[in-house]
Amino acid sequence: MTQKDKSILMIGCFDTKEENFNFLRQCIVSHGESVIAMNTGIFGSTSLFPVELESDLVAAEAGESIGDLRKRADRGHAVEIMGKGAGKLVSRLLTERKIKAVIGMGGGGGTYISLAAMEPLPIGFPKLCISTLASKDVTRQVGMKDILLMPSVVDVAGLNRISRLIMRNAAAALTGMAKVNLKTDEKSLGTIAISMFGNTTACVNECTKLLEAKGYEVMAFHANGLGGNAMETLIREDCFVGILDITTTELA
Amino acid sequence: MTQKDKSILMIGCFDTKEENFNFLRQCIVSHGESVIAMNTGIFGSTSLFPVELESDLVAAEAGESIGDLRKRADRGHAVEIMGKGAGKLVSRLLTERKIKAVIGMGGGGGTYISLAAMEPLPIGFPKLCISTLASKDVTRQVGMKDILLMPSVVDVAGLNRISRLIMRNAAAALTGMAKVNLKTDEKSLGTIAISMFGNTTACVNECTKLLEAKGYEVMAFHANGLGGNAMETLIREDCFVGILDITTTELA
Repeated sequence: MTQKDKSILMIGCFDTKEENFNFLRQCIVSHGESVIAMNTGIFGSTSLFPVELESDLVAAEAGESIGDLRKRADRGHAVEIMGKGAGKLVSRLLTERKIKAVIGMGGGGGTYISLAAMEPLPIGFPKLCISTLASKDVTRQVGMKDILLMPSVVDVAGLNRISRLIMRNAAAALTGMAKVNLKTDEKSLGTIAISMFGNTTACVNECTKLLEAKGYEVMAFHANGLGGNAMETLIREDCFVGILDITTTELA
Repeated sequence: MTQKDKSILMIGCFDTKEENFNFLRQCIVSHGESVIAMNTGIFGSTSLFPVELESDLVAAEAGESIGDLRKRADRGHAVEIMGKGAGKLVSRLLTERKIKAVIGMGGGGGTYISLAAMEPLPIGFPKLCISTLASKDVTRQVGMKDILLMPSVVDVAGLNRISRLIMRNAAAALTGMAKVNLKTDEKSLGTIAISMFGNTTACVNECTKLLEAKGYEVMAFHANGLGGNAMETLIREDCFVGILDITTTELA
């Protein structure tokens, strides 16, 4: 399957925000891309556009039934389950090479579900989330991923001149990335990670020189609380051929 | 001047991050776009690529000399002045219709300067910032703007396989938006803003119906602390023909 045959995955609660997703979908399609739509809304669906992956499937991936989620009526629990299920489905679509970019849109719950769904996507794989929370602290949810956050400015509720501008831009940004991004499945980066801080910079520089002379690429992470997390995330993604953790500031 | 003749504005500290900006610039140029480069670094410049707007010009816009900033060596003050000067230059480039998109990249200081520079750009005008802080709380800096934030994942310091992927994606996203965005100078939206909250929803819905029946577009803002700010920002940008501020929760 070539990059051109792959689709854009659109994730969201189509039960309450169908108008917005219908418009967003049209914007993506206008760039010549096909869309796979995944519904994460537990109270229903939409008839405005085709939905390839319905919410009962998403819930089932996380081991629960959509009926039970509806009955329980616990928003926090539903959001967690749908995020987990969406992530599993995204993993599978990625392995099956069916998708080349992912877009989400939502308020608090929708943003959380979208970001959880994007968890399994490797760095460099185009991912974007239109969110009412985009300018708040979403460190925990974004993690160390390269998720583009687009502030929705107005609420994700209905179409108006601002929401249309925002969605049009988001679709253009995502499809722009999807068109040039051809190495999204590259996982191993053949690189050596090194942790650094002011007090180890001289040592890091010396190590880097020696390693580069041997033909390795060296990637430094600032051990300031964020850098170490990024490094560990990438270690778990199997991005490095070696680690030189010579700065343990974050443990102190 | 048509949209095609306009350039992409690239803002950053070229004294310390020239390698990254050189690569980012090449990525943008590879999409067939021309670049105007604005240097906000106070300690020097670069010879890797042409710089159209040098840092002495940026400082002068804010009423200070680059020499004084260097001598004073107060990082916080320098960042504030360069952000202010960059914002004024961006305003002028916008009025002269020379730019169609703006991109910034940086760590703490560079991010702040870029976001301040983007302040004058209207909603819908493509703007993106690659930042080490992208997933932290940047509400104050982003304000209520539709600035796309791209987490840099690794530090903005030198080129490696991750930073290249991130910059390539950012350039593709920005130029993708610049290509479709043709109505960036539209300021007045001919819309009525209305503030809402749970306790006024019924009233808001009734007002909306009446106003829409009269041919107005109605835009609701959730008075939850963020929505009111967004509404006020847009009021200052002259986006509305009328305001119905019937929900004063944020004053309480």
